[in-house]
Amino acid sequence: MTYKAPLKDMLFVMNELAGLSTVNTLPGCEDATADTVEAVLEENAKFCANVVAPLNHSSDKEPSFWHDGQVTTSKGFKDAFKGFAQAGWQGVQHPTDFGGQGLPKLVATPCIEMLNASSISFALVALLSDGAIEALLTAGSDEQKATYLEPLVSGKWTGTMNLTEPQAGSDLAAVRTRAVPQGDGTYKVFGTKIFITYGEHDLTENIVHLVLARTPSAPPGVKGISLFIVPKFLVNADGSLGARNDAHCVSIEHKLGIKASPTAVLQFGDNGGAIGTLVGEENRGLEYMFIMMNAARFGVGLQGIGLAERSYQQAVAFAKDRVQSRDLAGSAGPVSIIHHPDVRRMLMSMRSQVEAARALAYVGAGISDVAHHHDDAAVRASNLAVYEYLVPIIKGWSTEMSQDVTRDGVQVHGGMGFIEETGAAQHYRDAKILTIYEGTTAIQANDLVGRKTVRDGGAVAKSIIGQVRETEALLAAQGGADFKAIHRALSEGSVALEAVVEYVAANMKTDIKGVFSGSVLYLKLAGIVLGGWVMARAALVAQAKIDGGDGDAGFYKAKIATARFFADHILTQASGLRTAIVEGSAGVLALTEDQF
Amino acid sequence: MTYKAPLKDMLFVMNELAGLSTVNTLPGCEDATADTVEAVLEENAKFCANVVAPLNHSSDKEPSFWHDGQVTTSKGFKDAFKGFAQAGWQGVQHPTDFGGQGLPKLVATPCIEMLNASSISFALVALLSDGAIEALLTAGSDEQKATYLEPLVSGKWTGTMNLTEPQAGSDLAAVRTRAVPQGDGTYKVFGTKIFITYGEHDLTENIVHLVLARTPSAPPGVKGISLFIVPKFLVNADGSLGARNDAHCVSIEHKLGIKASPTAVLQFGDNGGAIGTLVGEENRGLEYMFIMMNAARFGVGLQGIGLAERSYQQAVAFAKDRVQSRDLAGSAGPVSIIHHPDVRRMLMSMRSQVEAARALAYVGAGISDVAHHHDDAAVRASNLAVYEYLVPIIKGWSTEMSQDVTRDGVQVHGGMGFIEETGAAQHYRDAKILTIYEGTTAIQANDLVGRKTVRDGGAVAKSIIGQVRETEALLAAQGGADFKAIHRALSEGSVALEAVVEYVAANMKTDIKGVFSGSVLYLKLAGIVLGGWVMARAALVAQAKIDGGDGDAGFYKAKIATARFFADHILTQASGLRTAIVEGSAGVLALTEDQF
Repeated sequence: MTYKAPLKDMLFVMNELAGLSTVNTLPGCEDATADTVEAVLEENAKFCANVVAPLNHSSDKEPSFWHDGQVTTSKGFKDAFKGFAQAGWQGVQHPTDFGGQGLPKLVATPCIEMLNASSISFALVALLSDGAIEALLTAGSDEQKATYLEPLVSGKWTGTMNLTEPQAGSDLAAVRTRAVPQGDGTYKVFGTKIFITYGEHDLTENIVHLVLARTPSAPPGVKGISLFIVPKFLVNADGSLGARNDAHCVSIEHKLGIKASPTAVLQFGDNGGAIGTLVGEENRGLEYMFIMMNAARFGVGLQGIGLAERSYQQAVAFAKDRVQSRDLAGSAGPVSIIHHPDVRRMLMSMRSQVEAARALAYVGAGISDVAHHHDDAAVRASNLAVYEYLVPIIKGWSTEMSQDVTRDGVQVHGGMGFIEETGAAQHYRDAKILTIYEGTTAIQANDLVGRKTVRDGGAVAKSIIGQVRETEALLAAQGGADFKAIHRALSEGSVALEAVVEYVAANMKTDIKGVFSGSVLYLKLAGIVLGGWVMARAALVAQAKIDGGDGDAGFYKAKIATARFFADHILTQASGLRTAIVEGSAGVLALTEDQF
Repeated sequence: MTYKAPLKDMLFVMNELAGLSTVNTLPGCEDATADTVEAVLEENAKFCANVVAPLNHSSDKEPSFWHDGQVTTSKGFKDAFKGFAQAGWQGVQHPTDFGGQGLPKLVATPCIEMLNASSISFALVALLSDGAIEALLTAGSDEQKATYLEPLVSGKWTGTMNLTEPQAGSDLAAVRTRAVPQGDGTYKVFGTKIFITYGEHDLTENIVHLVLARTPSAPPGVKGISLFIVPKFLVNADGSLGARNDAHCVSIEHKLGIKASPTAVLQFGDNGGAIGTLVGEENRGLEYMFIMMNAARFGVGLQGIGLAERSYQQAVAFAKDRVQSRDLAGSAGPVSIIHHPDVRRMLMSMRSQVEAARALAYVGAGISDVAHHHDDAAVRASNLAVYEYLVPIIKGWSTEMSQDVTRDGVQVHGGMGFIEETGAAQHYRDAKILTIYEGTTAIQANDLVGRKTVRDGGAVAKSIIGQVRETEALLAAQGGADFKAIHRALSEGSVALEAVVEYVAANMKTDIKGVFSGSVLYLKLAGIVLGGWVMARAALVAQAKIDGGDGDAGFYKAKIATARFFADHILTQASGLRTAIVEGSAGVLALTEDQF
């Protein structure tokens, strides 16, 4: 159950598909030279593999626990987080002004993948801090930035996101937590928040809660939500800790997976009011929270990729080790099960989907860097639009994929997979949260349909499909069965995706329920087609390397074979999805409530 | 987390699709009149819902545990099993000669589904006993039958299947357990068996282990395996219990799911040898074990169906109850989430797959009854061939389906689904074993490809496809968008299935690894197409009922809509699967072991 970071694939994707050599010419990104990046990734890989990955299984067996308002995290977490903070890993992508390394998102992305492959439960605390930092950078006052950012970036403190309430799951319009102004610039916060990841823990001396609440004058619904900082301990002017704030963890959840990460119920204001300060302007909380959410959604996509990679590595190791039954094509004794075609099919399915999702996410990260750092505003804007189109796909598709992959990961192990000691089952359990938190797949799909497709009449989607078509032309110019198969599957995929984008844009007004009946399938289709696209691009690069006599032909040949597998086995689902989306809403909507 | 048996759908399928009115004209099946069957099912439904279903969640929280060689089952199991036995439910399908009810398999089938929907962990003990009974009925001596059958059929004792050993998972050729003849007709058995479901428990006073082992003169491989009865307590001539046998449970497993069912490691012969008697002839053990396995495989298919039904019911109840967010088409306040299209899509996906798998399994059970009871040997033989073709599909597809369904079942619950207290997560965990035990999906697929398709050149498969085509003709004759969509999807499906059957039959000799690269996908394709076929037949019956003014139009309309959903959303996967099977082996097989 070890983990070895797939640095070779990561660097291949960064250099050949995600445009590292372009990103590191952007203003502020010049430090991210190829050599520096490789060194950073190697160091990060060592830390993750040696310090964090060994905690994954033991912390699942002995999860964090609650006692009298305190949460004790799993054995080893405290030291690991100290090491994480001291090495500066929390700050990889954050500004140097606040103690960060100031590296581009494209470089932070593999670091986040590695940390999550090592232990999602552990990585979550860092992911939540990233979100809090993003929100404060965007909307915090200078004083708030001065007080909170440096300790968050350094890992001295951690951050949380407090959205959900018992009566309001995905529906933020229903938020009831109150924030009452005290006349001195502070507010008293009252309410209950649930599902607060690392809402309480013993890793750091303070926790910075970012809390959605309503002021007394707030309008109803999502337009009346404001964002507040409510620290666990108040912070004195000199940065030292003051009084314990009235924000207490009353319990943590008993969960299917990610058991080592405490999921807290937080009670604000039961003893007079939790003291908080407003972030940005009143009633704009949702907007700021979306900054955290978007960063976090991309990060959850990486969780899916990291977890799937871990599950794949474990399955490969087992399949090479476990000797059972004869080779179908031979009569000698029993062989390792990696020789059996269906085991191999599962491993290739896992591998190809992980590689495709990784490539898509990293390409997205590169686009995000251009969107944030390019000196031409028009270039920034067009790249931002593409990035924002990709975020729900990266989050939704990578996490759904992780559930397919971890299921196969158990299956490869046979009966041993069902035994908890083996560790494969933990990945299957852990994966299930990823399609739920930071917005369920349906919420991602709503975003993809509404804000990302209908709003611009499908223009961004079609511009991306245009890029897919350029790749198809290059594929058509290649010879050989592999490229022929990839070309055919990708072409069918892009036709299907285009038809669906047009269907969505055309029917939203007249048949909104019909369109949303297929929203998750549209997200899946987009993931498959764009995943197939980046794999096709990878195969083209690999062929060029082989043709150019590049040394590592084994790696490049495997990349082409993996792209071929993805085309034949995954991309071929596209046409069926198109029919299900365009023709399938009648069956979704036909039954009355009583008929269920 | 209650369970209400779907008696209406069960009876619809039995009467309208699976031919109960034909089955109960078969010799020995005359008692299974429509009225009797309905009464039996209603009684069974009550027992399952009232006695067993309430134990499912509590027994997951407090599983069976091992102490000093003894296994204590979860609270309530002992009384429930006593009630189960006393009511005669163990004997539903077993001969009246040995105290059973002698009802057809078609009638036992919904009973097994209901018991498994109530608690797979509980139902397993009965399923294993069924297998032991089948094996003894087929191969046991008169003395063995007289000694063991009546106590097994009555539920006084239970049975187990002992195949797997630490070094031999699915590969029975590797079995090492030894059986040494003692010259008095008995054998001493020595060896370790793992993954023995209910290998030890406190539900009954004795346990009848059926054990695969090798005699000293046995040839190597699967041709040298014999089957032995090794009871936990030896049985005196008068049926009373004698000495404790040398078969001991040394531990039980800590598992992902079905935690209440003890999975034992059994040690035979550590204290001088466990005394056993040979079942049937020496070296024919595998053949007899396959009798148990085939019955058990069908039963595991029903576990998938029952579990998926339970998960569906729980998701529906939550979706009707949970109020969150506004209706997309309205501006009023928040609505129950069943109004949201993607929740509805998940529920319809769950529902349609459960109904399709149920219909296919029950149709299979009816065919099995004809195969075993018809007075014309030729009719028996042709039906047996069809039944045996269906068994790996019913097992493999229904169980894979149950993993899709239980995953959606968690997803419908959102964050609550990830909390163990909700109960949805248990189904997701429990489902994962179903594609593994009694032969993994790949093992089922091997059977489907090898024995069931290649051996007769695809003749049986094509005869079934011929029946599908007859249904297509009836669909074409119907009007309306629903039947048009169902017709189109089923036609595309049958074309795909036929092409794959031909590919498999034609390429087995020249490209065995290529064919087996797609074996599981072939199984899935067959499940989808045959599931779509029985749903299409159900829709035709429903339309005829509506046209005939039959009272329950709501039920029949829902059936048509559900068939339509299945056609648009599930059957449309067929063409992609065909390409993956026929074109996709290159990608499966391309990598060397080192490249993984």
